[in-house]
Parts: sequence; structure tokens; C-alpha cells
Amino acid sequence: MSSFYAAIMAGGVGTRLWPLSRSTRPKQALRLFGDRTMFQHTIDRLTPLFPLDRILVVTGPQHAEVLHPQAADLPAENFLLEPAGRDSGPAVGLGAIHLLKRDPDAVMAMLTADHYIAKAERFRAALMAAEKVARAGAIVTLGIQPSFPSTGYGYIQRGDLLDRVDGFDVFHVVRFAEKPDPTTAAAFFESGQYSWNSGMFVWRVDRVLSEIQRQRPKMYDQLMTIASALGTADEQQVLAEVWSQIEKISIDYAIMEGAHDVAVIPVEIGWSDVGSWATLLDIVEGDENGNVVTGDHLGFDTTRVLVHSQNRLVVTIGLADLIIVDTDDALLICPKDRAQDVKSVVDSLKQDGRDAVL
Amino acid sequence: MSSFYAAIMAGGVGTRLWPLSRSTRPKQALRLFGDRTMFQHTIDRLTPLFPLDRILVVTGPQHAEVLHPQAADLPAENFLLEPAGRDSGPAVGLGAIHLLKRDPDAVMAMLTADHYIAKAERFRAALMAAEKVARAGAIVTLGIQPSFPSTGYGYIQRGDLLDRVDGFDVFHVVRFAEKPDPTTAAAFFESGQYSWNSGMFVWRVDRVLSEIQRQRPKMYDQLMTIASALGTADEQQVLAEVWSQIEKISIDYAIMEGAHDVAVIPVEIGWSDVGSWATLLDIVEGDENGNVVTGDHLGFDTTRVLVHSQNRLVVTIGLADLIIVDTDDALLICPKDRAQDVKSVVDSLKQDGRDAVL
Repeated sequence: MSSFYAAIMAGGVGTRLWPLSRSTRPKQALRLFGDRTMFQHTIDRLTPLFPLDRILVVTGPQHAEVLHPQAADLPAENFLLEPAGRDSGPAVGLGAIHLLKRDPDAVMAMLTADHYIAKAERFRAALMAAEKVARAGAIVTLGIQPSFPSTGYGYIQRGDLLDRVDGFDVFHVVRFAEKPDPTTAAAFFESGQYSWNSGMFVWRVDRVLSEIQRQRPKMYDQLMTIASALGTADEQQVLAEVWSQIEKISIDYAIMEGAHDVAVIPVEIGWSDVGSWATLLDIVEGDENGNVVTGDHLGFDTTRVLVHSQNRLVVTIGLADLIIVDTDDALLICPKDRAQDVKSVVDSLKQDGRDAVL
Repeated sequence: MSSFYAAIMAGGVGTRLWPLSRSTRPKQALRLFGDRTMFQHTIDRLTPLFPLDRILVVTGPQHAEVLHPQAADLPAENFLLEPAGRDSGPAVGLGAIHLLKRDPDAVMAMLTADHYIAKAERFRAALMAAEKVARAGAIVTLGIQPSFPSTGYGYIQRGDLLDRVDGFDVFHVVRFAEKPDPTTAAAFFESGQYSWNSGMFVWRVDRVLSEIQRQRPKMYDQLMTIASALGTADEQQVLAEVWSQIEKISIDYAIMEGAHDVAVIPVEIGWSDVGSWATLLDIVEGDENGNVVTGDHLGFDTTRVLVHSQNRLVVTIGLADLIIVDTDDALLICPKDRAQDVKSVVDSLKQDGRDAVL
């Protein structure tokens, strides 16, 4: 497994987990499952496969301040700091040029910091299989078996079976599809030909950089400008200058949709993007009443309720399928089936200038 | 109106308004309607009729510490302090012996500290009428027109019309009935012969004391023991000794159910005992969505919700007919129709030894 690296994209905020998630306390820094944060769970999953010095984290300086203490053994130089958020495209590029400098043969797994994976061992096995496929030259993505016709994920259409590696099927990717409308999602789901796009990719760094060069030549030049300054006295200044100009774009739009020789490995690893508070009710085993509780809760006739409380006793009577998230300065209450709307609440708070709770 | 006194019984806690009400912050001390506490509203209602020196407050020392600053102009000696709560029977007796010493002709209005009365002027007119009837010798109670077959109030059966005073009908009382079961409540309601017992009475102090003497001779003797010590060096010690022995009993059980010559004046004064959080949703005019809000609330698709928050932003999405009461250390959420169950929650917290939130 030499030359195999993990690059964790940890720049997001996770606004749908407001009020627990904040600009200064992003989703990956939250303790949503037991005593470990999402970021810590992510590191825990990876260390059996990757030595700590081969785990990079691409994030902002503010997030790094919160995340580094949560994984104190990670070398400081493995935190690659983006001067500003530019979505996953430039973030991947930043990881790739750093790795290329370290190791021209590097294979890079682009991973997320804030997803839930129930079956960690199977996940690592999939990464090892993907590394083999990627080393041979393909861009590899891990595909998730859709459990319902979601409109919240991108989809990957599978083509021919290319290979079978370590027990994993490897398919040619026909195309990447953006988040679909409900009709399209239903068609994708029923066809049985589609996987969800988990946002986890494995590729040789020279391979992904050449895709960027081919499809996003300007971004490639910008990345090379940074690359030539790495390790020099000008590194920070050059990075800041380039980053203020670089296009804000996701890796999917930047290269995946137009990439050559892309393979998908469908995986069954108990994956969830923990996209909203409702997800926790679905994936965490509740108590005897189906309640998922963090903190001090007394429920009377209360079932299938999510309670997340920090310092307060929460008493509920006669409630079901409700989300209750209590923090020092803000309290959210909504039915489980409205949990997606938290994002628009946060947008509304932004418009109202309620920065203190954002 | 000389010799007419108000005696406010302010010993209760109001557990159904938990978590706002606490043992050290009783219901009468709460700001449930605007900026004034229930106790302040009570005083405000009375001062057009009673000079401050004719308003007594019967309560415990702990409550007095909270209440006196809310009505700083009330003379300290008008706070009659019960060493312990003994329900309304002994409390009335304590008020009566103090008043008898001040003024043998005193007529005493026994009033509550934690009820809502929308029509204060009409209330005062009713008290003036009741004073006239009481001065002539009757025990007078103010009866409330039932708006539904409540099982939460005692009832008063009206008999013959005795008189008409200042525009108020005065009826003979056939009997007092305890809080009825639902069938009985429905029968009372349909008969049209019953008023709710508001717990507000008007009587000459010599008259109420002679009823206690006739029906509760032991309590009468105990009260006379205290009375003879009033103003002496032994007053506190005698009071403490007697109070440790005196029967805990409501004024209804102690004398009203067996009293002679009792009259009821039905009043329409917009009365509510504010018996639970649900009451506030009924009697307070809400905003354009029917929400009754104290504090910082952002509601999305939220209707007919009560929000009482002290220091936190409360965000609700897609909710209706819900009670949300947020305090520094405890949060209550329940549907409006479960608001009565808060009492059993408090009982449960007591059993669990959760004294910090009681």
C-alpha cells in the first residue's frame, strides 16, 4: 500500500445540522454518534489502512483550528489550508499538487469528513480494491446502492463490468448525472443501472491533474503556479493570490462529468451522508421507544424523537417523529419530515443578519 | 368602603406552569402577560378599590422574598407569613385574626394571586356588591359562568334569587360540589344551575371565624392561641408551634361546604385560573398565526404555538398547537392538549430527586 494516500475534504459547514453546526463548529467537528466527532470517526476508519502521515486534510484555517485538536497526532503539515472555500474542485487540486510533490506515484483517495459508514472494514477493503484499479490508470468512484429514489444525490450510470478485484465488481461508468428531479430519480431507481455518487474517488494524482489540465486548463495553470511555490517563502502569498482568482466549482462539474476511463465500484458499507437531523433517526438505533437521545431527556408518551441537548433537561409529553436540537443560544424544533427545511432556515437567518447564531 | 380589606392568598407554586414556575419562583411571580407579574396584575386590579395598607398577602417567607420587591409599596407588615403551607383553610384563618385585631368590623375579600381577570372594573364592581351583601352577614362567593363541563373546578349550585345589588344578582347557595367526574360535570353544565367556584370569597371576619369555630373548633382554638400572641414577643414562636400542628385543609372543605347563609354572585369578568400553559393559548390574543410568543421566536409554517423563551432563539418549522417553554436549565415541549400532564411530570421529577429543576 505504499504511495496510497487519503485526502479528506473537510471544508463544509453542514448547515442542515443547525443549530448544532455553526460556521465555527462545522458538521465534521460535531459529536453526532457517541463520544467521537464525525472527523474523529473518519480518521478512526482510515488509520488501519493509512499511516497518519499519509492522511491529508483539506480545509479552511478556521475549521483546522477546531479539527486539529480532535486528531492531535495528525502532522500539522498534513492540514492543507484553503484561504477561502472554493468547493471541491480546487480543494482536490490543492491536495493533488501537494501529493505529487511528495510522491510522483501517489494514488489519492478523496474522502469526506462528515459521512457515516457503518461497515468500516468493508469500506477499507473497497478502498484497497479501488487503489488497485486506480493505479492501473482509471478514475475510480465508490457507488452507493440507492435505497429510494432520492433527489438529494448525484447518480452514476453503470455500463459494462470491467473487472472483479478482491471480490468487488468494477464497472465502466456511462455517465455522471446531477441531482435529478423526482421523475428522473424514479426512472434511475427503477432501472437498477444507477448508483448514488458518494463523493468518494480514488485516482493517481498525475491522472487527476491531467484531467484538470485537459478539461480546466486555466485551473491547471493556477494549480501549477501554487505547486511551483510550494516550500518557498512565497508559498502563502502565491496561494492567497491564486485562490482569490480560482473558479469555485465542484469536482463533479470540474472533471468527473467529462472524464475519460472512469470506473465505479458499487459498495455496501452502510453509508449515509448524514444530510439532516432526520438521518440520525434513521441510522442510529434508538432506545426502547425509538428515541435517539444525546443529553438529559425525560420522555412521556414520546416515540421516535431525536433529542440533542447540551446543558438542559428536555421534557417531552405526547410527541412522535420530532427533531429537538437544543444549544446554548438556539433551539430547533421540527417534525422529522421537515428536517430538510433547516437549510432554508439558516438562509433566512443569514438574510436577517443573525450572525451570532450562525 | 371603610373596613373593607383584600387578603391575597399567595402560597401556591403552580406546578402546571413548570418549567417556568419553580418552588422558588411561583406562578404568581411570573410574567405570563406582558411585563407585569401575575402578582403585580393582582395588586394593580385592587388598588383602585383598596388603599395599599388594606391589602394583605398571606404567603410563605420564601415567596414573600420574591413577591414583596414586585410590590414594594405594600407595607411589610401586610405580608402575613405562614411558617409552612397548610392549604387555604389555615391561611384564611391567619388573615382573619390579623384583620379582627385591626378592625372588628372588617369585611375581608379572600382573593387569589395567580388568576387572570380580563375585566378589572367589572371585577371591582362585583367586589363592592359582595361587600354590601357580606356586611349584612352572608358569606359571599363569586361564581363563574361555566364555559364547558370542566372537571378541574369545584361547582356551586345556585338556589333562589335573594337580592339584586348594584346590578348583580345574588343567589342562595344550595351546595358546594367538589371537582366532579366527567358525567357529573356534564350534568352540572347542562342543568344551567351551577357556577364554577372561583376561590374568591367575601365575608365579615367575625362571621368567617364563627364558622370556623362551629365547624373546626380545634382550628379555631389554635387560631385564637396565635391571635392572643399577636404583637407580643412570643408571636413568631407561638405561630411556629401552632402551625406545626394545624390541620392542612382547603377553605372549601374546612367551612364552605357546611357553612350557613352562603350567597353566590355570578360574575362575568373574563376570569381564568391560568391552570396550565394551554390556558395562555386560549386567553392571550396571538399574532397573525395564532402564536403566543414571549422571547425570540422564528416560526416557519407554525400556528397556534405557545413559545416562552428566556435567552434563546427558538426556531420552529411545521408545527401547530404546541407548547414550548424554555428556561435556563429545563425545556418543556408538549402538545396543547397534554398541558395538564405537566403536573405529573413535576411529580415524577420530585420522585427522581431532580430538585435542581423544581
